[in-house]
Amino acid sequence: MHHPATALNDVASAAGRALERLRAGAPRVHCITNNVAQNFTANVLLAVGCVPSMTLSPEEIGGFVAKADALLVNLGTLDAERRAATEIAVRAAADHGRPWVLDPVFIDRSVPRAAFARGLLGSQPAAVRLNRAEFAALADAQTPAEFARSHGTVVAVSGETDLVADGARAVTIANGHSLMARVTAMGCAGSALVAACRAVEPDALLAAAAALTMLGVAGECAAEKAQGPGSFAAAILDTLYNLDAATLRARAKVN
Amino acid sequence: MHHPATALNDVASAAGRALERLRAGAPRVHCITNNVAQNFTANVLLAVGCVPSMTLSPEEIGGFVAKADALLVNLGTLDAERRAATEIAVRAAADHGRPWVLDPVFIDRSVPRAAFARGLLGSQPAAVRLNRAEFAALADAQTPAEFARSHGTVVAVSGETDLVADGARAVTIANGHSLMARVTAMGCAGSALVAACRAVEPDALLAAAAALTMLGVAGECAAEKAQGPGSFAAAILDTLYNLDAATLRARAKVN
Amino acid sequence: MHHPATALNDVASAAGRALERLRAGAPRVHCITNNVAQNFTANVLLAVGCVPSMTLSPEEIGGFVAKADALLVNLGTLDAERRAATEIAVRAAADHGRPWVLDPVFIDRSVPRAAFARGLLGSQPAAVRLNRAEFAALADAQTPAEFARSHGTVVAVSGETDLVADGARAVTIANGHSLMARVTAMGCAGSALVAACRAVEPDALLAAAAALTMLGVAGECAAEKAQGPGSFAAAILDTLYNLDAATLRARAKVN
Repeated sequence: MHHPATALNDVASAAGRALERLRAGAPRVHCITNNVAQNFTANVLLAVGCVPSMTLSPEEIGGFVAKADALLVNLGTLDAERRAATEIAVRAAADHGRPWVLDPVFIDRSVPRAAFARGLLGSQPAAVRLNRAEFAALADAQTPAEFARSHGTVVAVSGETDLVADGARAVTIANGHSLMARVTAMGCAGSALVAACRAVEPDALLAAAAALTMLGVAGECAAEKAQGPGSFAAAILDTLYNLDAATLRARAKVN
Repeated sequence: MHHPATALNDVASAAGRALERLRAGAPRVHCITNNVAQNFTANVLLAVGCVPSMTLSPEEIGGFVAKADALLVNLGTLDAERRAATEIAVRAAADHGRPWVLDPVFIDRSVPRAAFARGLLGSQPAAVRLNRAEFAALADAQTPAEFARSHGTVVAVSGETDLVADGARAVTIANGHSLMARVTAMGCAGSALVAACRAVEPDALLAAAAALTMLGVAGECAAEKAQGPGSFAAAILDTLYNLDAATLRARAKVN
Repeated sequence: MHHPATALNDVASAAGRALERLRAGAPRVHCITNNVAQNFTANVLLAVGCVPSMTLSPEEIGGFVAKADALLVNLGTLDAERRAATEIAVRAAADHGRPWVLDPVFIDRSVPRAAFARGLLGSQPAAVRLNRAEFAALADAQTPAEFARSHGTVVAVSGETDLVADGARAVTIANGHSLMARVTAMGCAGSALVAACRAVEPDALLAAAAALTMLGVAGECAAEKAQGPGSFAAAILDTLYNLDAATLRARAKVN
């Protein structure tokens, strides 16, 4: 987006609209995610109005994905069960036209996991959310825009400033708070929010940017009330539950 | 229970008595439950004085159930490991005379899970706790009372008003708060509380009604202090820990 | 340690120094731990500045341990996956000179688990953290000092007063609060803190004593602000995040 004012306007509007649609429509988001993140991810999704489900069972996951509005595939604690579940789920998403989001957790620290993530890029994720080290491990020397273009996806690189790019557009989001890095599964929950927003916003770049803006703004608001990471984790759920379009617009730092 | 006043009196008394016995006796409750719910379920059980255990390992679960005072079987994230664990655990419960409670999570969304749940009804659960959609998937067109009678169990259907029925008696509980639906595993934890109460209250209908009354009253008290689902989840644990018979009697809406 | 004043001084200093090093160095702690404890354990480690990882996958765990600064092996919810992961991880720890800590949860309630724990003692854990019942199941009739000496390890027995001993020295820590027993995974998280402290403190006795002092002091501070176990769990994370050497020195009850 060439005009900062346009980008801010578009993303803040998309975030406000997405929140409204999540609360009104209660979309189902099926999550393949790591053991550590399941509880917090479910609570983030519930806080914004979604219905999360988390089964990994090969007999069941195809049916859950078929009836879901979006799918998250997070590669944390990747094991044989999750590999098998992911293959079934991604195929079901393709068969039923469900958007899915990839979060390749810690692929910078595990060669087999990075290879598995690369294989999944062929199955057309709507978005890939990851941090800088993970992006470097996945993208060889491509820029986010090049990577997004060559894989036909949206890439959302989290960091002090988040960057969201598709092949043609890019936005940065400078919201968030350092306490977000002190609560486990915060990034994983961010990826789940991207999937949730994509369920109600067909423009995947806007959906990803809206999700990261929501989470970043909620993090800033929560930090104002928190004494540390324990109270912060509760406060960010409270804030997401109470978040409104006016706060998003007033606080969003989108360029 | 034909007389509302009697029902209120019986259930409020049973709930107060159960709380006292849980705190004094610290019964062991073994839980087969889904990954998402394990942490919150353990914390709910600890808050009322129980000792939870959660292993699914086939070598160990029989021994844990044999020494437990009650068993919970929750079908969330049902996988091969949980199916195997459930079969061993339910048999151990029968062999050692331990009451067990079934929570057939999401059977309205999974045909194989619904079939598995139906198979378990032959093993005489003391109670089945579930929501309306799950009950409809399990009970064909039976009413709760018919279902309870034909399976020799107690059925506890959660909703805005909870209904607890055995073949002869029925009570409704109108406690609770909408934030309870925004915290993952709240229903699962409710089923664990039913198992805990059944460990100290031999009348399974009173045990189930007592558990749902405790949780509903705690939810109402917690909502008065909460700013959203994050602070609410902490507050309901605090409230269960501090709950007393007088509050239960004053707040219970049992008919 | 023969002199109480020396013990207090040594342990309080070690705890303050460890906190500083954890925050400055952000050591990686790989955890094999039970499903129930993963989230809270990760949050405790993050609160003091560590980077936790939790994968159990046999393809990956060796690589994670090789790059970690310490390893925790907690035997809760011990299943085939965790047994296999443990064997790989403990071997990787030996190959790469990484210290590891054993927490043999509930071995007093499971014969096969106790046998597995005994087998692990041959692989030289830097420390074993457990409660009195678990120690009795592991140690036959040995005292903590005898057990520590014969296995070349440090033993940390938690209870109202914690005891930490190696073959030559012993300290007791009388910090902590009864609410710690009402939050699931508090002991498990304590063992993870022992591993974290051992990553930055080569004297394993001081490391274990420092970790239990941190947790006990944090528990006392948190209890002053908590209304029950829900707010307590958040408050102990907040307190660990904000803990300083002066508070440790002022509050530590070490002998």
